[in-house]
Amino acid sequence: MVERQKIRTQVGIVGAGPAGLMLSHLLARSGIDSVVIEKRTRTQIEETIRAGILEAGSVRLLVDSGVSRRVLDEGDEHEGVELRFSGEGHRIDFQDLVGESVWLYPQTEVFIDLADARERDDGDVRFSVTDTSVTDVLGSPRIQFTDTEGMAHEIECDFVVGADGSRSICRQLIPAGERTDNFREYPFAWFGILTEAPPSAPELIYAHSDRGFALISQRTETVQRMYFQCDPTEDASAWSEARIWEELQARVAGNGFSLKEGPIFDQMVLPFRSYVCEPMRYGNLFLAGDAAHTVPPTGAKGLNLALNDMRVLHLALAEFYATGSQRELDAYSERALNRVWKSQNFSYWMTTLLHTMPAASDFDNRRQLAELNSIVTSRAGSTYLAEAYTGWPQN
Amino acid sequence: MVERQKIRTQVGIVGAGPAGLMLSHLLARSGIDSVVIEKRTRTQIEETIRAGILEAGSVRLLVDSGVSRRVLDEGDEHEGVELRFSGEGHRIDFQDLVGESVWLYPQTEVFIDLADARERDDGDVRFSVTDTSVTDVLGSPRIQFTDTEGMAHEIECDFVVGADGSRSICRQLIPAGERTDNFREYPFAWFGILTEAPPSAPELIYAHSDRGFALISQRTETVQRMYFQCDPTEDASAWSEARIWEELQARVAGNGFSLKEGPIFDQMVLPFRSYVCEPMRYGNLFLAGDAAHTVPPTGAKGLNLALNDMRVLHLALAEFYATGSQRELDAYSERALNRVWKSQNFSYWMTTLLHTMPAASDFDNRRQLAELNSIVTSRAGSTYLAEAYTGWPQN
Repeated sequence: MVERQKIRTQVGIVGAGPAGLMLSHLLARSGIDSVVIEKRTRTQIEETIRAGILEAGSVRLLVDSGVSRRVLDEGDEHEGVELRFSGEGHRIDFQDLVGESVWLYPQTEVFIDLADARERDDGDVRFSVTDTSVTDVLGSPRIQFTDTEGMAHEIECDFVVGADGSRSICRQLIPAGERTDNFREYPFAWFGILTEAPPSAPELIYAHSDRGFALISQRTETVQRMYFQCDPTEDASAWSEARIWEELQARVAGNGFSLKEGPIFDQMVLPFRSYVCEPMRYGNLFLAGDAAHTVPPTGAKGLNLALNDMRVLHLALAEFYATGSQRELDAYSERALNRVWKSQNFSYWMTTLLHTMPAASDFDNRRQLAELNSIVTSRAGSTYLAEAYTGWPQN
Repeated sequence: MVERQKIRTQVGIVGAGPAGLMLSHLLARSGIDSVVIEKRTRTQIEETIRAGILEAGSVRLLVDSGVSRRVLDEGDEHEGVELRFSGEGHRIDFQDLVGESVWLYPQTEVFIDLADARERDDGDVRFSVTDTSVTDVLGSPRIQFTDTEGMAHEIECDFVVGADGSRSICRQLIPAGERTDNFREYPFAWFGILTEAPPSAPELIYAHSDRGFALISQRTETVQRMYFQCDPTEDASAWSEARIWEELQARVAGNGFSLKEGPIFDQMVLPFRSYVCEPMRYGNLFLAGDAAHTVPPTGAKGLNLALNDMRVLHLALAEFYATGSQRELDAYSERALNRVWKSQNFSYWMTTLLHTMPAASDFDNRRQLAELNSIVTSRAGSTYLAEAYTGWPQN
């Protein structure tokens, strides 16, 4: 048996992505002690390129909880998006419709802000750990791990939070009979590129075309992110730059609009699926973020859901430690899942609205165009989309 | 060669359902002459039981054009509908959301009002004709038919309007290469009943349940219409009354609600499909109503679309006869199709929102509930539904 160095904390958090760090930060503000462990290095996480759209509520959470104001200074406020179909663009004006914006601020920047904040506030975050395991989640939980020097540790805690991503080891602790795995596969994927070019548009463009969906996004003044729907078995490396640009241009063409091209320095195929684990709690184990759910990227909800899970879980833990009441902890799964399912539905809606199904008929294509037309010609329809995109009121 | 008695008119209309009669009535008000022929007897049409929800604009058309005010006196104004799911009802308040209502007024009553109005105004409507054929639609159209006395006739006219229903002979005159047939099949049908019972609710109930969709509608104080989703191969006659009531009750159960039962005197399986013919014009032939499109019954749009087609076509013909301009005639197909496709999309939306697909997973079911929840908790979402249900502004 390994001799393990004991660590005592109130909340043990597995995973130091934005979700785990956000919770640790919020708990510290409520005087609750936590330890975060993470198998990746900090640099590895920083180099993971992920989504970049923050809901208004996510921005407020980062700023108001004292993580950082950098998102306001360096992020790009977007007051709308463009829906593009039949060769024309139609702006959905978030500010006009719902009085909210979203912020273009890549996930890696959110991570850096959170990691810096935890360091600044002397948070206990341990990167590059190995051999992680979790035990006794129905009683007094324990987390075992080995640090970078080879030293074995065991965290004793009141609660374990599984924020360890879509391949979560924590989720596996919920016996199959005690959880429902809700899956949905989609018959396509996204081909994503990074290009050294100026922005082609000031806001995101969601494009419907006969050739399938495309998304024109931004990153900085000199680097842009673009995607187009492709077959899930597509070999990204087989595409020449010329072929990629031809495909992207064709999907957004119309009314004289064209993309500003530049060298492509990253090209990859992104998987596309939906998953929800129900419930998000098992005994003293709480799941959050990608460990509990995956959304298709169409609605830009993944990171926002993770942050919202932690907002709700923090409130529940804060109430428990302040009053001893389990009421909010008991409500966590249902409260978090309410927003998770609304986000799944929104992502599904945006996906089916804009993507071409492999067996799509003329009828399906015409119906999609009628739906897009119904949305952009109806203030109610545009508002229904805008309030989902910018994020519903927090519950 | 048959010796045919010649009839000269401006507009020859094939089909004396609500669509054909509506156009004939509107044309007469503009001083334009028309003849309507119909293969069924008037009694046969009156006995055809069809949809019963009129959009606000359809009611205004009937009243304001002088057909009849009976819909206002004898129809039932419905200021909302109920969406029922997870055992609870949620009212969509049309008046509050969009300031409009719909009217429960069966299609057979609309037909009676129109047939009476044509008779009152000495309109030329010939029921029970046989051997109908249409020729020369690219030049000077002719309609051949035989009357009830066996006399052969030929109508010479400027334009032919095909209002002859989903098995339209007029549509067949558009060569396959000149039209697109947009079809969509659904993997289910509706089991419909008529029962002698008092109303179970003051407004329509659209119910989502684990057993599939159900619609609770009304007809009179003593007769009710109800439907539930079934397999398209279902044998309606094989169902006992007890089994039907058990199925219906199970699909609307919750919160102490139950249906008021009574003897069932009609039970049948209704087909369920979508179809749009594009374009709706070929030379001097214009298609309208079911001859050009079929919508699933979920959105209650079939009759309303037919009446709107005729409103648009009347305006175009009136302009032509007043000014000689073809401009509005040239625009007819696109203007009518704009609303047809919006209605197809709305019907598809209501269908996929509420029906259970044969291969539906837990994910699909939970997503539907999230969509229903998103709609009823969002004023914008409820408004988007209400404006479609009561009918968008006329274009």
